[in-house]
Amino acid sequence: MVQPYCAAFLTITALLCLSTCLPNARASFEPSAPLHRVLERLERQSDRYDADLSDLVAFPSVSALPDHLPHLEAAADWLAERLNEAGLQNVGILPTDGPHPVVYGEWLSAPAGPNGTAPPTVLIYGHYDVQPVDPLELWETPPFKVVKRDGYYYGRGVDDDKGGLLEALHAVEAWLQETGTLPVNVKFLLEGQEEVMSPHLTSFLRQNAKLLAADLALSADGGQPAADRGGLSLGLRGVVGAQLEVVTSGTDMHSGMKGGAVANPNSVLAALLAGMHDPVTHAITVEGFYDDVLPMTEQDRRDVEAYGFDAQQELLELGLYGHVGEQGYSVLEQRWHRPTLEVVGMSGGFTGEGIKTVIPARASAKISCRLVPKQTPQDILEKLQAHVAKHCPAYARCSLSALGGGAFPWTNPRNSLALAAAAEVHTAMAGGKPPLFLRDGATIPALAAFQQELQIDTTKFGWGLSEKIHAPNERLLADMYDKGRRAWATILERLAVGYGVFDEAAFGTAPAGEDAAAGAHDEL
Amino acid sequence: MVQPYCAAFLTITALLCLSTCLPNARASFEPSAPLHRVLERLERQSDRYDADLSDLVAFPSVSALPDHLPHLEAAADWLAERLNEAGLQNVGILPTDGPHPVVYGEWLSAPAGPNGTAPPTVLIYGHYDVQPVDPLELWETPPFKVVKRDGYYYGRGVDDDKGGLLEALHAVEAWLQETGTLPVNVKFLLEGQEEVMSPHLTSFLRQNAKLLAADLALSADGGQPAADRGGLSLGLRGVVGAQLEVVTSGTDMHSGMKGGAVANPNSVLAALLAGMHDPVTHAITVEGFYDDVLPMTEQDRRDVEAYGFDAQQELLELGLYGHVGEQGYSVLEQRWHRPTLEVVGMSGGFTGEGIKTVIPARASAKISCRLVPKQTPQDILEKLQAHVAKHCPAYARCSLSALGGGAFPWTNPRNSLALAAAAEVHTAMAGGKPPLFLRDGATIPALAAFQQELQIDTTKFGWGLSEKIHAPNERLLADMYDKGRRAWATILERLAVGYGVFDEAAFGTAPAGEDAAAGAHDEL
Repeated sequence: MVQPYCAAFLTITALLCLSTCLPNARASFEPSAPLHRVLERLERQSDRYDADLSDLVAFPSVSALPDHLPHLEAAADWLAERLNEAGLQNVGILPTDGPHPVVYGEWLSAPAGPNGTAPPTVLIYGHYDVQPVDPLELWETPPFKVVKRDGYYYGRGVDDDKGGLLEALHAVEAWLQETGTLPVNVKFLLEGQEEVMSPHLTSFLRQNAKLLAADLALSADGGQPAADRGGLSLGLRGVVGAQLEVVTSGTDMHSGMKGGAVANPNSVLAALLAGMHDPVTHAITVEGFYDDVLPMTEQDRRDVEAYGFDAQQELLELGLYGHVGEQGYSVLEQRWHRPTLEVVGMSGGFTGEGIKTVIPARASAKISCRLVPKQTPQDILEKLQAHVAKHCPAYARCSLSALGGGAFPWTNPRNSLALAAAAEVHTAMAGGKPPLFLRDGATIPALAAFQQELQIDTTKFGWGLSEKIHAPNERLLADMYDKGRRAWATILERLAVGYGVFDEAAFGTAPAGEDAAAGAHDEL
Repeated sequence: MVQPYCAAFLTITALLCLSTCLPNARASFEPSAPLHRVLERLERQSDRYDADLSDLVAFPSVSALPDHLPHLEAAADWLAERLNEAGLQNVGILPTDGPHPVVYGEWLSAPAGPNGTAPPTVLIYGHYDVQPVDPLELWETPPFKVVKRDGYYYGRGVDDDKGGLLEALHAVEAWLQETGTLPVNVKFLLEGQEEVMSPHLTSFLRQNAKLLAADLALSADGGQPAADRGGLSLGLRGVVGAQLEVVTSGTDMHSGMKGGAVANPNSVLAALLAGMHDPVTHAITVEGFYDDVLPMTEQDRRDVEAYGFDAQQELLELGLYGHVGEQGYSVLEQRWHRPTLEVVGMSGGFTGEGIKTVIPARASAKISCRLVPKQTPQDILEKLQAHVAKHCPAYARCSLSALGGGAFPWTNPRNSLALAAAAEVHTAMAGGKPPLFLRDGATIPALAAFQQELQIDTTKFGWGLSEKIHAPNERLLADMYDKGRRAWATILERLAVGYGVFDEAAFGTAPAGEDAAAGAHDEL
């Protein structure tokens, strides 16, 4: 069943510009005839896009697990082939300083504008690595096999970010299939280390700055607040990860023979971790942790309010017993504007079935701190180290070291042309309802790195709902997978319009043979 | 090279009875002619005993791991066959209410005393299950292959307790081989669940009380303070294990998207665990935990002092950075007379290599408390439960449940005949130096159960040095393995003497063929 998508555009007549609208956001627009054809093609070919999602998700490309590297490389091979097939040029698998390669492809023959204005180049960003799947027993379907049921695709990476990057790829492919050209130049940068905090992306960008030169970036990583409510991100938190090790002896000991009179590293670690938050205010107690945090502005508070976060709803959705966090900040204020210190892993002693009466020699924890402007990964790491050194008891040795690459917090300027184009597309996709302007507590290290190394801003343009990403039963609403590729097809045109280079006459028509084939497919 | 063992006995002439001697401990004794021959045989056959140790250790009979049950059963089969081979009768593999069977064997034809006095029956206790071996990477030799080097046997269970039970078995076998009889009746009870706290031993004893009826028990589980210093145990701590679970949500969550405003079960667990000890006094803060603990007596303090524990030496041996424990008690006082609360395992979130930016839905810990008289496992479990219920925050669900079978603390009365016989043997083995009277912080659930179900006291008669038992690179000094079987051979006679039933004339001579074979072996 094909949805009458294009009708949405026609219903847009006059939109009130709310306080959250951008100054230069257009109230409405009319898609060009070539875009109409591209959108129709995207509808016709949905089986192909389902197959792509199944193929790509089937690679268990978990970047956190070194023994999954071959799967990561296989995913990169598949993507490179698929970029080639889509019509991208200069496709390659480019090494980084780490084990996870970048998949690159470009198409740089967009037509110049009516006055000979050069078309802009858009760097399209996504990542093909995924999070680990454990605890495996909580998955209701096999994590690396896409299962479609109840209107969702289930599987590791369907949303974050394999589905996302495929939407962009499918839009580009459809433009080339339908018109033989693209409204703007594009360069795909698909990385394989996002889920381990992109430790080698910054150096990769520096080494390949010329190849990657662009006017702006669009990120296929990211998501929407709800199926019926679009959002555009003004900021992401940064992150720094750390491994905390506590050693109390040179050997595991018998808990009965020695216990009671020797330090237990589990208890030392527990005390260290417990002491990192104030038990009453839940503020982080690490000295100087908040030193560089900017106070929230009035606009920040208005954005939070406009978002209309439903805390009760989230409790139900996540099965939480309550929210908890830094005193004096609402749930959303905490996530958008306040840093965190989370113990993401903790382990010591015997953790199998049953019991082993042992006092282990060591215990360890993994800590992840989300950072807000102007915090930096290195500074926070050093403050954590100082805290641990200060609170480690005399009868233990404690060490804290960086784990994974850190990432700076990222912000997107409110006045960017790309953000305006994205807002136009969002408004059109939502039947005239403008997007919310929001922030996100998560991190995409690439975005701050693009600012630092390529001097370009990024607009987040992902379309999943981020449901259970990083968790068992990750899923992607099938409607959003469809919507995403239409949105990508549209923004390429809106960017060309925004940059003043769009000329409908420059776009050809599709080969008759392909159209016929697509038509036949449509009737299935 | 054969050591002139028997010379030790001859050097004993007059021993001063120190304050730590038992009232009825004999100053010296002369082994009988049959015992001389038994001891010589034990020396000749050491290769056979090495082979037994290798064979038995080769079964990875880890009772804590359910999938190792077949190995446990295979070890039981091997033992039953070996008991038969040694001349035990009525040998059987007896089921318990759990998965781990008991291996039983008896020899009940000991000669009556000169006045027709019935010989006593000795229940010989040991266990053939072992602790898990992880962390495997810390083992320098394969854990289930006995490697002999530098005067030690290395392997899981060489000391605890496969080596121990073999020493007793070898002594009994040698008496039967050499004389065709035994000075006392014996019943072997070899269990397979000691390392999981013998959850089904009490009911087994109750169900088999008649079969197991005896006058006293000797335990092959337990160890000596040092190679040149014997010790006899007056008490062991009991134990209760518990699993603590903390749940904060219905799903794992993304640490960035949700973090900062939702409870982290790792942090909740850390705070719970950290709060179980006073940070200054290191006393356990669980309400009522010490209520039933008996104060130390003057005799207790004298025993501690007489032991001469070298804390500095232990720091070096174990690679500790210091001792720590309940304020007001020395290291040994803590281990002998004070209860503990140890976190023996702790786990939550992602614990693999690298990092996963997740807030898990749950975290858990395993707690082991050692108990002293008059504490009981059930009472302490309930107090832990009350503590956890009281301190669990509103935004989490915490539960604490029993893990493994609990065990009561055990004491051995100072005036028992068996303890006196054991002290005689110790004194003789140590060239006239009487044993220390000590307690042990560890637990052997069987010993309190023998008191409760069979109404018999047990004397610990193990000969290992408990070096790295429950830890990687468990080892047994080869000299102690030799000494242990000679000690077992000797105590059987000393018990008969003590009970007034020993009559040297009742013991035959060994078959000539066997002697010749043994002699030939000696010359290898």
